[in-house]
Amino acid sequence: MRTDGLFISFEGIDGSGKSTQARLLAEHLRAQGRDVVLTREPGGSPGAEEIRALVLQGDPDRWSARTEILLFTAARRDHLERTIQPALDAGKVVICDRFADSTRMYQGLSRGNLRGLVDELHRLMIGIEPDMTILIDMDPAKGLSRALSRQGVEERFEDFGEELQQAMRDGFLALAGEFPERFVTIDGGRPIEDVAEDVQRTVAKRLNA
Amino acid sequence: MRTDGLFISFEGIDGSGKSTQARLLAEHLRAQGRDVVLTREPGGSPGAEEIRALVLQGDPDRWSARTEILLFTAARRDHLERTIQPALDAGKVVICDRFADSTRMYQGLSRGNLRGLVDELHRLMIGIEPDMTILIDMDPAKGLSRALSRQGVEERFEDFGEELQQAMRDGFLALAGEFPERFVTIDGGRPIEDVAEDVQRTVAKRLNA
Repeated sequence: MRTDGLFISFEGIDGSGKSTQARLLAEHLRAQGRDVVLTREPGGSPGAEEIRALVLQGDPDRWSARTEILLFTAARRDHLERTIQPALDAGKVVICDRFADSTRMYQGLSRGNLRGLVDELHRLMIGIEPDMTILIDMDPAKGLSRALSRQGVEERFEDFGEELQQAMRDGFLALAGEFPERFVTIDGGRPIEDVAEDVQRTVAKRLNA
Repeated sequence: MRTDGLFISFEGIDGSGKSTQARLLAEHLRAQGRDVVLTREPGGSPGAEEIRALVLQGDPDRWSARTEILLFTAARRDHLERTIQPALDAGKVVICDRFADSTRMYQGLSRGNLRGLVDELHRLMIGIEPDMTILIDMDPAKGLSRALSRQGVEERFEDFGEELQQAMRDGFLALAGEFPERFVTIDGGRPIEDVAEDVQRTVAKRLNA
């Protein structure tokens, strides 16, 4: 698929501040007059939001890991077709809070070793990767206390202990090493404004390249 | 996956009488004292029924062909894990009204040439095929008038013209030729009792083999 715009994803463990940073970057680029679509996964299109609700509501164990991977991939396919690809084709900047890397980590790593399956399914049904993935790296203890302090509907994802969060952090860092051409890792354990400035500088370099 | 039981699917165009024949076969085998699970797709487990509702309700075009394939595969995975595989492991006869062959036809053929994609996804996420697939073959004109006479919630599937039904019939016959080791084609254009007798005879041969 041809992309005229720029596709940026934010990744990181819960409480890392990635959603805040995605929003701040969108505001910053809009203030510069850029056309920005700020979106998130799972969800990001009406159909994908319905699938999200189906997966995240109710007993966390009611879907097996494999069924969950299929549902998230269905949501991603809808999100890609209805939201991301049209925006990229129109030359917009798409900022997405989580994308396929979250599935590689959460479904591929935390529920058994299904990374190969996640990758094969991604290749078959999605195909596209972000032009740039900003990993907001964060100490799990700090991230967890942040995540717990806001709670809410997304408990499903936050229902992990510190040990698992540490594994997820390590996993994201390993993923950044695996895809160095698109990953940029930024230290999220500093004041929000400092992190935001790093993010802006990183994206500016790419936009002006 | 090891299967102790027997997995029988029924396929055919809408109005072919396959659902009636699936039910009659279940009743016949139960009368013989066999433990039978009669199920259907899409659906067949609580989670899969929820996915079915998500796909079949609302505007038929709200999901793309690829997203629909993913949703049906998610439903099938859940159905397989929660209903079909446990029953087979317990040595039961599973009779399923539609299985993967319907996806090969309806999503793989009628919404663009996606058969290769359907097959790859099936290999990756499902893996299992029925031990025996009974194709109830039917003249589309006859099938369509039968289907229209009952209408109902499943309009989604019946919302096809006669030309497409003819293509589906041809497609199912071609599929039977592709998998001769598991397909048995039975002429559905005769009185229900005669068709049922043929089905019973075919299954008896397999059960006593």
